[in-house]
Amino acid sequence: MTDIKTTLKALGLDASTLQKGELEIVTPVDGSVIARVPATPVGEVGNVVARAQTAFEAWRTVPAPRRGELIRLFGEELRRHKDDLGRLVTFEAGKIFEEGKGEVQEMIDICDFAVGLSRQLYGLTIASERPGHRMMETWHPIGPVAVISAFNFPVAVWSWNTALAIVCGDPVIWKPSEKTPLTAFACAKLFEQAVKKLGDVPANLVQVVVGKADVGEALVDDPRVPLVSATGSCRMGRAVAPRVAARLGRSLLELGGNNGMIVAPSADLDLVVPGTVFSAVGTAGQRCTSLRRAFIHEDVYDQLVPRLKKAYGSVRIGSPLEAGTLVGPLIDGRAFESMQAALDQARADGGKVTGGERALQDRFPNAWYVSPALVEMPSQTEIVRTETFAPILYLMKYRELDDAVARHNDVPQGLSSCIFTTDLREAEAFMSAAGSDTGIVNVNIGPSGAEIGGAFGGEKETGGGRESGSDSWKAYMRRATNTINYSRELPLAQGIKFDLGD
Amino acid sequence: MTDIKTTLKALGLDASTLQKGELEIVTPVDGSVIARVPATPVGEVGNVVARAQTAFEAWRTVPAPRRGELIRLFGEELRRHKDDLGRLVTFEAGKIFEEGKGEVQEMIDICDFAVGLSRQLYGLTIASERPGHRMMETWHPIGPVAVISAFNFPVAVWSWNTALAIVCGDPVIWKPSEKTPLTAFACAKLFEQAVKKLGDVPANLVQVVVGKADVGEALVDDPRVPLVSATGSCRMGRAVAPRVAARLGRSLLELGGNNGMIVAPSADLDLVVPGTVFSAVGTAGQRCTSLRRAFIHEDVYDQLVPRLKKAYGSVRIGSPLEAGTLVGPLIDGRAFESMQAALDQARADGGKVTGGERALQDRFPNAWYVSPALVEMPSQTEIVRTETFAPILYLMKYRELDDAVARHNDVPQGLSSCIFTTDLREAEAFMSAAGSDTGIVNVNIGPSGAEIGGAFGGEKETGGGRESGSDSWKAYMRRATNTINYSRELPLAQGIKFDLGD
Amino acid sequence: MTDIKTTLKALGLDASTLQKGELEIVTPVDGSVIARVPATPVGEVGNVVARAQTAFEAWRTVPAPRRGELIRLFGEELRRHKDDLGRLVTFEAGKIFEEGKGEVQEMIDICDFAVGLSRQLYGLTIASERPGHRMMETWHPIGPVAVISAFNFPVAVWSWNTALAIVCGDPVIWKPSEKTPLTAFACAKLFEQAVKKLGDVPANLVQVVVGKADVGEALVDDPRVPLVSATGSCRMGRAVAPRVAARLGRSLLELGGNNGMIVAPSADLDLVVPGTVFSAVGTAGQRCTSLRRAFIHEDVYDQLVPRLKKAYGSVRIGSPLEAGTLVGPLIDGRAFESMQAALDQARADGGKVTGGERALQDRFPNAWYVSPALVEMPSQTEIVRTETFAPILYLMKYRELDDAVARHNDVPQGLSSCIFTTDLREAEAFMSAAGSDTGIVNVNIGPSGAEIGGAFGGEKETGGGRESGSDSWKAYMRRATNTINYSRELPLAQGIKFDLGD
Amino acid sequence: MTDIKTTLKALGLDASTLQKGELEIVTPVDGSVIARVPATPVGEVGNVVARAQTAFEAWRTVPAPRRGELIRLFGEELRRHKDDLGRLVTFEAGKIFEEGKGEVQEMIDICDFAVGLSRQLYGLTIASERPGHRMMETWHPIGPVAVISAFNFPVAVWSWNTALAIVCGDPVIWKPSEKTPLTAFACAKLFEQAVKKLGDVPANLVQVVVGKADVGEALVDDPRVPLVSATGSCRMGRAVAPRVAARLGRSLLELGGNNGMIVAPSADLDLVVPGTVFSAVGTAGQRCTSLRRAFIHEDVYDQLVPRLKKAYGSVRIGSPLEAGTLVGPLIDGRAFESMQAALDQARADGGKVTGGERALQDRFPNAWYVSPALVEMPSQTEIVRTETFAPILYLMKYRELDDAVARHNDVPQGLSSCIFTTDLREAEAFMSAAGSDTGIVNVNIGPSGAEIGGAFGGEKETGGGRESGSDSWKAYMRRATNTINYSRELPLAQGIKFDLGD
Repeated sequence: MTDIKTTLKALGLDASTLQKGELEIVTPVDGSVIARVPATPVGEVGNVVARAQTAFEAWRTVPAPRRGELIRLFGEELRRHKDDLGRLVTFEAGKIFEEGKGEVQEMIDICDFAVGLSRQLYGLTIASERPGHRMMETWHPIGPVAVISAFNFPVAVWSWNTALAIVCGDPVIWKPSEKTPLTAFACAKLFEQAVKKLGDVPANLVQVVVGKADVGEALVDDPRVPLVSATGSCRMGRAVAPRVAARLGRSLLELGGNNGMIVAPSADLDLVVPGTVFSAVGTAGQRCTSLRRAFIHEDVYDQLVPRLKKAYGSVRIGSPLEAGTLVGPLIDGRAFESMQAALDQARADGGKVTGGERALQDRFPNAWYVSPALVEMPSQTEIVRTETFAPILYLMKYRELDDAVARHNDVPQGLSSCIFTTDLREAEAFMSAAGSDTGIVNVNIGPSGAEIGGAFGGEKETGGGRESGSDSWKAYMRRATNTINYSRELPLAQGIKFDLGD
Repeated sequence: MTDIKTTLKALGLDASTLQKGELEIVTPVDGSVIARVPATPVGEVGNVVARAQTAFEAWRTVPAPRRGELIRLFGEELRRHKDDLGRLVTFEAGKIFEEGKGEVQEMIDICDFAVGLSRQLYGLTIASERPGHRMMETWHPIGPVAVISAFNFPVAVWSWNTALAIVCGDPVIWKPSEKTPLTAFACAKLFEQAVKKLGDVPANLVQVVVGKADVGEALVDDPRVPLVSATGSCRMGRAVAPRVAARLGRSLLELGGNNGMIVAPSADLDLVVPGTVFSAVGTAGQRCTSLRRAFIHEDVYDQLVPRLKKAYGSVRIGSPLEAGTLVGPLIDGRAFESMQAALDQARADGGKVTGGERALQDRFPNAWYVSPALVEMPSQTEIVRTETFAPILYLMKYRELDDAVARHNDVPQGLSSCIFTTDLREAEAFMSAAGSDTGIVNVNIGPSGAEIGGAFGGEKETGGGRESGSDSWKAYMRRATNTINYSRELPLAQGIKFDLGD
Repeated sequence: MTDIKTTLKALGLDASTLQKGELEIVTPVDGSVIARVPATPVGEVGNVVARAQTAFEAWRTVPAPRRGELIRLFGEELRRHKDDLGRLVTFEAGKIFEEGKGEVQEMIDICDFAVGLSRQLYGLTIASERPGHRMMETWHPIGPVAVISAFNFPVAVWSWNTALAIVCGDPVIWKPSEKTPLTAFACAKLFEQAVKKLGDVPANLVQVVVGKADVGEALVDDPRVPLVSATGSCRMGRAVAPRVAARLGRSLLELGGNNGMIVAPSADLDLVVPGTVFSAVGTAGQRCTSLRRAFIHEDVYDQLVPRLKKAYGSVRIGSPLEAGTLVGPLIDGRAFESMQAALDQARADGGKVTGGERALQDRFPNAWYVSPALVEMPSQTEIVRTETFAPILYLMKYRELDDAVARHNDVPQGLSSCIFTTDLREAEAFMSAAGSDTGIVNVNIGPSGAEIGGAFGGEKETGGGRESGSDSWKAYMRRATNTINYSRELPLAQGIKFDLGD
Repeated sequence: MTDIKTTLKALGLDASTLQKGELEIVTPVDGSVIARVPATPVGEVGNVVARAQTAFEAWRTVPAPRRGELIRLFGEELRRHKDDLGRLVTFEAGKIFEEGKGEVQEMIDICDFAVGLSRQLYGLTIASERPGHRMMETWHPIGPVAVISAFNFPVAVWSWNTALAIVCGDPVIWKPSEKTPLTAFACAKLFEQAVKKLGDVPANLVQVVVGKADVGEALVDDPRVPLVSATGSCRMGRAVAPRVAARLGRSLLELGGNNGMIVAPSADLDLVVPGTVFSAVGTAGQRCTSLRRAFIHEDVYDQLVPRLKKAYGSVRIGSPLEAGTLVGPLIDGRAFESMQAALDQARADGGKVTGGERALQDRFPNAWYVSPALVEMPSQTEIVRTETFAPILYLMKYRELDDAVARHNDVPQGLSSCIFTTDLREAEAFMSAAGSDTGIVNVNIGPSGAEIGGAFGGEKETGGGRESGSDSWKAYMRRATNTINYSRELPLAQGIKFDLGD
């Protein structure tokens, strides 16, 4: 793997200076250490926030379309370095190169979107009930935004937040996963290029802090950070959210998913098979939107499951850097252990497991490749209701759609879901108020792979946050409801009389 | 005060059954006990939530325009009982009758608004990047909503929440202030009338629970309540928010304000004087939007302050039930003590206090009337930066607008603010990204008395929630981003290739 | 028919004064003259417009929520007189009483909608590209609106326009069909009641002019009428539109439809049959959204057509005033002749006609009742492509959906359409950019009977106008894009330098 | 002027092939013929439309974000050729190079905006009043769009239309002014470059037709062109609009303006002077938004007018290709004559003219340079109420703001207006429903130079069209209101009962 240095260099990073820190960066590709980076001292976090605040004072009064121009230039940098950054994602996160590039494409897409948005941060003008009065709603920058991201989408989720935050007038403090700081450094570098090209931009619009939970906590607790956008597990969310809430700050949470699929009798199985495989084994099952549960109508179960097994048998497991690989490694040994524990529990619950074994151990003794697992379950036991961050897909039968929907909804998380059906009524029922309770609801597509034009996020223990498209930008701004009296009278709302005499 | 029984009766309540509980309801008008109501046993709260859930299952599939019709009928009930309910507000909360009726008018307004809204719970249809795909955003009912309201707006804030929640498809569990359950019972009764008129409505759409903090906590902690809408002090918010966050629920917080005013040299003092008096002494200074701090340009200070003192001297203090009264009682003795403590501290900080003494002690020995206080402060000391729920207005001088804005913003709360100026540039600067940091920003109107058409709420320790107009309704719904593939292909977003071979 | 006088009286009209004009009002129920009303002299139209302008000057500055209150009160009047007004609609237009009441319900619905709208006439606040600048979009009243309505919806369409126009701040000048002035007088009377209840409303907010084309033309040509909203035939539209355009005015046109239905193999025929009958024979086929063409898949044609014939055979033809009647009379003898001519042509084109004969001639010798006609056509000939305002439904077969859609779109009009299918792909294809080209597109509902929450109207020769819900209100207002410079500089947009030196 | 060939070449055009047609292209810079281009035969227009239709069939189903990618690439081409295209604008239209580049910048801006928009062509999802029903509003491509543009903005206005039309799925047929086809050819060439880069784009998305009125008429009358977007004089609009209306097509008209300014006593004259000069003499007074009328408060009139005269005296008149020039030539001799005739009439009406003489006649005997004119008018006579496309600014006094607004509004056009004031009340009054009646309303900026983020266009004889930002894109699409019944029942809207029995 001589390639990492070249990749870092192409992204403007000096590999040699990335060998001196206390944090060992291990590539899941082969388990080797590819860098050693210094952690940000906890005591330094306050200074980082202070610098962000200074940047904020200047940036908030820069016209939004000019802020958009910065993001446009950043998008150009990303276009220019799509392959390099995609490859670095593969090195650090272990996802296949095709997905690595897809992640960068998502960054580019959100930049394009944010550029347009920079002239569309629309508030409302509103008719007042009082003569000679005018009302309007304005949206203003809110302040420094902390972005805490996870290893599995090391760059895209940050870019969703950052493209919007910057356009909205907010500096960003980024704490990447301690497993993936290199991609963060690379992004910061590219961002800096865009800053230079635009010129006249305050320093420290994007800052990276690296470290473990203590660094994150320092950030989360800082009252000068009005918004904490955190992506990760529900466990992480349950730790972060109350801390932010205790200081009456704002959280934007993108937590776990236990994403389900319903396969109806009328489903087009030629779509179901590839849709299932991509959703369940893509990123080695380590997407928050990975497919984890399938409810298959009993009339098609026996047809579909063998086809799935065959497809699973044919997916190529291998180095994610190599063309043709569809399944790369798990992030680390702990992930492997969790997966095995889950499979053991599933078996104990009566599940029939296919796959799930360690793979490529000879070639990559220090890495954690697995064959993706299909588990035929007699019922939705507790382990099925638990999100295991690995390529495990639980298969269950159903007879009535209502029942399948009820079981589908009977998990704590609420991120993504899908139905495969060609029956209009079933599709509509699934999308209705009484249907799926997730934030992303797909028909004839797997649960993963969202477009940036829609709002991304979920309900229940997924945390309720929305990022990316639609009006998600509002989370990065503060709203003011303005009423202007331009008359010479002072009537009260609701027609109240309050007469001082005279 | 023989009137309370008549009032209760007119609202469909039986005064005699309201004499048996452990919670003594004391009217601030004269300090007498007007009712004794039973508290909801903490153990009963779970059943209340369960009933709300059952109601939810049915209500969520009722078409929104029909849900709107229920609110229209409720608005009709309110129109019919405006005076009675307004008077009961006066009895329980002590605000003057004119303001009591204003509060009911606000309920009526929000009902009208919500009826229209019932056909306008708009999501978006969105162009997909994939051929043969369609995207759309839908908004669905979210589940039972807990509404925790405060004594000072015993009915309006609940109605803001409830009119929207019901139209959005959510049942409501209302915990009113333990000081004002009677108005809650009355509202529930009127709501029940509307339910009867519409017919075919699930039971328990609106339920009232009464009690102290423990009842509230049981509600706040219940994972079956996806949204907790709480109005009250920042202290309360800091208690509630982390509990809801710990279970990854959603909070809508309307907490304290320390609302400021800037009086510029060009201000029309004929508007400033009544605007100040209404904002500062209305509801005896016990509105969350009450004016508490005034920054007066040194060029007009000496002109304005005597006029304010004169106006303060002339406001009639008296029973809020009597016509002509502008200042009624404080809610209780504790409020009086807090006020006195604040005034003492202000004096210690160099402040010059006018007013603030107890009033009408002879006539109402058990009630807590005060003359509203003006306090000329040499600077913005800690007591000025603290919200004291009483009619205290701190007066300070300024020379430069930038400095006045900075001092204005230098408080933890961020609810409401205003500037009196006829200078366009000053007004715009105050409303700009670098201006006032509150959620409500007024020009030539005091900070209190919002219209229901705008979003109501504030930033920072005010809690960030928005209620009433604009798109506040979104807090009461869950959003789904739907993608429908109606093609026979399965292209991936971001152009990712994931080829299973065949 | 002694009933007409009672009905008029209940609506506040004096039957005796309605016997003196030159316009004979003939009820299609039995062909008798029920009133004689004076036509507005053409020369008077200018005065009417002048009065509307005077009303406009006052009304435009009345706060929109107060304008909404007027519409709320008008809605109350309509609720109170629903049966009476519904019956008068039946008398004048001949539609069955159930549909007459439905029309009034639609008026009530739009009033409720408009009340909510009165606080939601939202413009946008927009980020400026220049520092110290603010942009916002405001919507202002535009001026007197001429509403030209047709006999078949004598009151609902007017109310769609008027509820919005009044809330938007515009007076209305109404020219009803010369066949249905009584309902117009009744509505104006009810509106006047609402005006009285609100009080302090300028005179002449709603004025009615009665007459033939010359009166309409005087209105259409008046440059003081910025908006002409006209409902009627394409022929009428082609006369009105260029006249308005010649003076650079604004038209809102709701013209003819030649509305089609596709019945796919998967269709639920239990829905198709009643859906077809209601859409095709409701209002005796005289709705602009009446179903006129059906493309039935060859696999279900032989199943469906007999069921349709049976259903057609069972619909009760009779006086529209009588309970149980489903098909009332045509509006007049000319309509009957057009229908017969169309059927003759269809036969000549190879069509097989069932029904279509005159009915109830004995009972109502002066009225024009017909049995609704089904015509099995070998192909879509010119007569099928022509809108005949009568209960004729042309039935055609298809094999491929693409072909059915192409034939469906191959008419000049573009109002409404529908598909009956349970196949998701077919439904989506029909609703896609390459699907139906009409303004209203339904799935598993007939083409008629829209809800007021959506925008109503169509493309191509239907005229492009949109009324009722969504953002249709914008047609009744003028938009201003405001830019406010509150800085002390004067930067130019697009970064242009234009330096005067000094 | 050897430069034109280089410029054409840099834009990919072959100067030699542009010497063979019958249309002589004369540069206003020196009156020389710079090209001879062939006119499109009238009989060819139908073929052009047919090709556009073919392109439409393919383009409408291409996902909008991909359509946006084409516009992004086009924007890149424009960035690359900003100077060249800006210079060609100067050659053909005679505006100064700085303004030429500004026009290209506007093209770039609208491209960026349209790219974002390509994921934001939002319709609405709407709650249905019927159980088991869903409503949504979709926006679809409408078909080929004819864009008729004027000489004074030879490229920007086309790009406003085209960037939106292409993103909306519509091919464009462009008829530029017969005075400025070269810039049209250059734009088409750049567009073609973008098409090549994207690949897989249907041919003929943008076609140029060249000619006089007959070519335009052929386009305007073609029923296959659903939208005609025409920019030019009111006279042109009055010719085009009825023709399009006669075939029930849709017009988007951007016609003349007679744009006014109010200078209030509190105005910052340091802004008024440059704001006036840029607005009145920019593009030699040949913008549709050029300032033509100034109402100056009598208290500042005597201060301001001398400053304006001094500034007018100092603006450099000269070749628009030369740096430092602020006023270039009029488009042709006819424009000069109109200007002189207007000045003569103004003098006859009592006006006092400063400037307005022919300039640089020695250097450019065949070109039409003038010194910009200030005309002090005793009142607003007919010539003042007339738009003369030349640098004439009429100055008038006022005493009361109401009166100034009334006189301001008393012209047939309604495009742009402004007020200079620092008085909040005056600014708000001017922006209120009773204030300025134009589509663009500015405060402390001149009437010209709009940003692309707002909707551009005006009311009254300006034609009512809106282009560029806000929701102007809707003009390029057709709206469908969809209702989907996914239940097994067929309830009717408005609760109508229509029972077939059984």
